[in-house]
Amino acid sequence: MPFDPATLRYDARGLIPAIAQEAETGEVLMMAWMTAEAVARTLKTGRVTYWSRSRQAFWEKGATSGNLQELVEMRLDCDRDTLLLLVRQTGPACHTGRRSCFYTAVRDGAEVEILAPE
Amino acid sequence: MPFDPATLRYDARGLIPAIAQEAETGEVLMMAWMTAEAVARTLKTGRVTYWSRSRQAFWEKGATSGNLQELVEMRLDCDRDTLLLLVRQTGPACHTGRRSCFYTAVRDGAEVEILAPE
Repeated sequence: MPFDPATLRYDARGLIPAIAQEAETGEVLMMAWMTAEAVARTLKTGRVTYWSRSRQAFWEKGATSGNLQELVEMRLDCDRDTLLLLVRQTGPACHTGRRSCFYTAVRDGAEVEILAPE
Repeated sequence: MPFDPATLRYDARGLIPAIAQEAETGEVLMMAWMTAEAVARTLKTGRVTYWSRSRQAFWEKGATSGNLQELVEMRLDCDRDTLLLLVRQTGPACHTGRRSCFYTAVRDGAEVEILAPE
């Protein structure tokens, strides 16, 4: 079946959550949002392009920082309302300089930092 | 720092997205939503409990199907608006009987099923 980004289920703002996972290691790097046009751009260019809710603009990951996300494969879930992106990440994915945005764990009721900036 | 579910950032509906990842293999299984109370219950019981948007009710994963998700570790992202749950999944995570909800890949512009029901 040909894939059409318009057939995904977007929320009231026209957005769909996209999880980025490092293709080689399986590490979950971040979660951000896409519009249908961001999905189309990502597939066309092979460079992951989100929609920035704060800036209300397309956000080609790494276009300014150099920390590009190259798309290896896009997957969708059973409800067609979440995307999983297998990527090759150059440099840290997180704006804090860490490899992943998920650097805080909850252990024994406390927050523990488990990843340092690179 | 002690962890308080109230310090997470919820959307206008009071929800936060939670990604479930199999702790052993790194496979991303599903994405669903939690309220602050669902976060607290999950930490307290060790059984992953979401908020069902369609049923508007707590949804202890596997309580009816037996396909429980046991929490191994909860992590939060830099913006405190997304959770990553490392879990031990009993049976398939997807209601279609597949191990993961992300069983559809986009390859050469077409949708391809990459996981069969177990």
